[in-house]
Amino acid sequence: MSSRLSLNQATTTQWDMPTFVDGCVRAGITQVGLWRGPVADYGLERSAKLVRDAGLTVTSLCRGGFFASPDAIADNRRAIDEAAALGTSILILVSGGLPEGSSDIDGARQNVIDSIAELAPYAAAQGVQLSIEPLHPMFASDRCVVSTLDQALDMAFLFPANQVGVCVDTYHIWWDPGVYQAITRAADRISIFQVCDWITPLPEGVLLGRGMMGDGCIELRRLREAVDATGYTGPIEVEIFNQSIWDSPGDEVVNRVIRTFEDHVS
Amino acid sequence: MSSRLSLNQATTTQWDMPTFVDGCVRAGITQVGLWRGPVADYGLERSAKLVRDAGLTVTSLCRGGFFASPDAIADNRRAIDEAAALGTSILILVSGGLPEGSSDIDGARQNVIDSIAELAPYAAAQGVQLSIEPLHPMFASDRCVVSTLDQALDMAFLFPANQVGVCVDTYHIWWDPGVYQAITRAADRISIFQVCDWITPLPEGVLLGRGMMGDGCIELRRLREAVDATGYTGPIEVEIFNQSIWDSPGDEVVNRVIRTFEDHVS
Repeated sequence: MSSRLSLNQATTTQWDMPTFVDGCVRAGITQVGLWRGPVADYGLERSAKLVRDAGLTVTSLCRGGFFASPDAIADNRRAIDEAAALGTSILILVSGGLPEGSSDIDGARQNVIDSIAELAPYAAAQGVQLSIEPLHPMFASDRCVVSTLDQALDMAFLFPANQVGVCVDTYHIWWDPGVYQAITRAADRISIFQVCDWITPLPEGVLLGRGMMGDGCIELRRLREAVDATGYTGPIEVEIFNQSIWDSPGDEVVNRVIRTFEDHVS
Repeated sequence: MSSRLSLNQATTTQWDMPTFVDGCVRAGITQVGLWRGPVADYGLERSAKLVRDAGLTVTSLCRGGFFASPDAIADNRRAIDEAAALGTSILILVSGGLPEGSSDIDGARQNVIDSIAELAPYAAAQGVQLSIEPLHPMFASDRCVVSTLDQALDMAFLFPANQVGVCVDTYHIWWDPGVYQAITRAADRISIFQVCDWITPLPEGVLLGRGMMGDGCIELRRLREAVDATGYTGPIEVEIFNQSIWDSPGDEVVNRVIRTFEDHVS
């Protein structure tokens, strides 16, 4: 198995925290991306101990952001604390969409920058880098007003590199005519690289339509090579939101992840 | 009613060709965008005569493109002939997605350019400008590899202005952080301006999820003003693919179009 493979917990939501850790250990996976929800369900300190005792490295925590919420700053401070407690240096930020009833996308984007400015020094002081994740433009209104890698970089470059980076996820950026230039431009700002594939038709709500590597049309290996060419040598997280994958036995999913990662990414 | 409003036929698919023409006349609409399918169903010459006799101006024909098809060039020549026969100078091109089983998006994009190069002189000789329409990136794999206005412009600028322009549709470009710069850059290449709104959740397949003006979050008036600022004084087509609109009585839809166009676009 590639030593760079990290399994993001969102790929196997059929597993709770201890089952996920057991499954990773059983499959020989040594790195994991975690989500705040299942971590909170099991308990923060308990989760931290569980992954530590299992010898797993936590490659990122998902997610902070959603800056249109009234309590966003306080909630993001808690997310930073949780990342530090889990022993990861990367908190992924999904910015959130437009405030309810608003059409002011410029205002929402400025609010992302302002919120990050408020949080970034606090994060860096705890050894956590905020990682801005551009989401596919189909999520621009309701989930993430940061829609391209270039836009995420424009925001990240306003801050020191130890405070703010970007999360490069093939699913969100593959379509962009400027994606390879943007990856080159990202240089040492890439905090984390995530992979999955693009498949159609998209399901209602479009959130759970991601594909296993090789099932879709993304040039995964080409994108991985472009990310590598920036000097990034870090983990590659597999993060797939897909109802039919979630309905499958977890061990089968993990075995498919390992095999298709080898075939289409490594 | 705004003298710039044009009703695109795809907004009222519950109406066949003669019912559509009658409905437009009844509502006082003087301009229409047509689609090849319903035109062919009623007959090309018959459709041309029908709209001419009703005093309607045809502001565009949808659509050529889909260049991954083996017979694309021949089919697009027919589409150009049909546009000329209907008396419109604008044929909208939706480029098509990736060839079946292909991941080569660069190749598909180059094929769009090559195909347009083959068709553009033929179109211009008939007084028809090819209008490249960027579609929302959620359609990049299966419907249109041209995903941003800037990308459409990069293609259009390879050709003389009388041969190739761009179609600016609010639904496809509203999310783009560079959209206002791109509109300014488009200058006199804007062949046609189309409006509808962005609403969520998107339905399965995402094609029929467009909203009536004012029902969503697009800054329609701001975009219209930006398009106007380029010097564009042409028609503004309302084109809404939405199953619930298609399930409503056509006259009601047209009245809503007229009212919401006034409230949110004019």
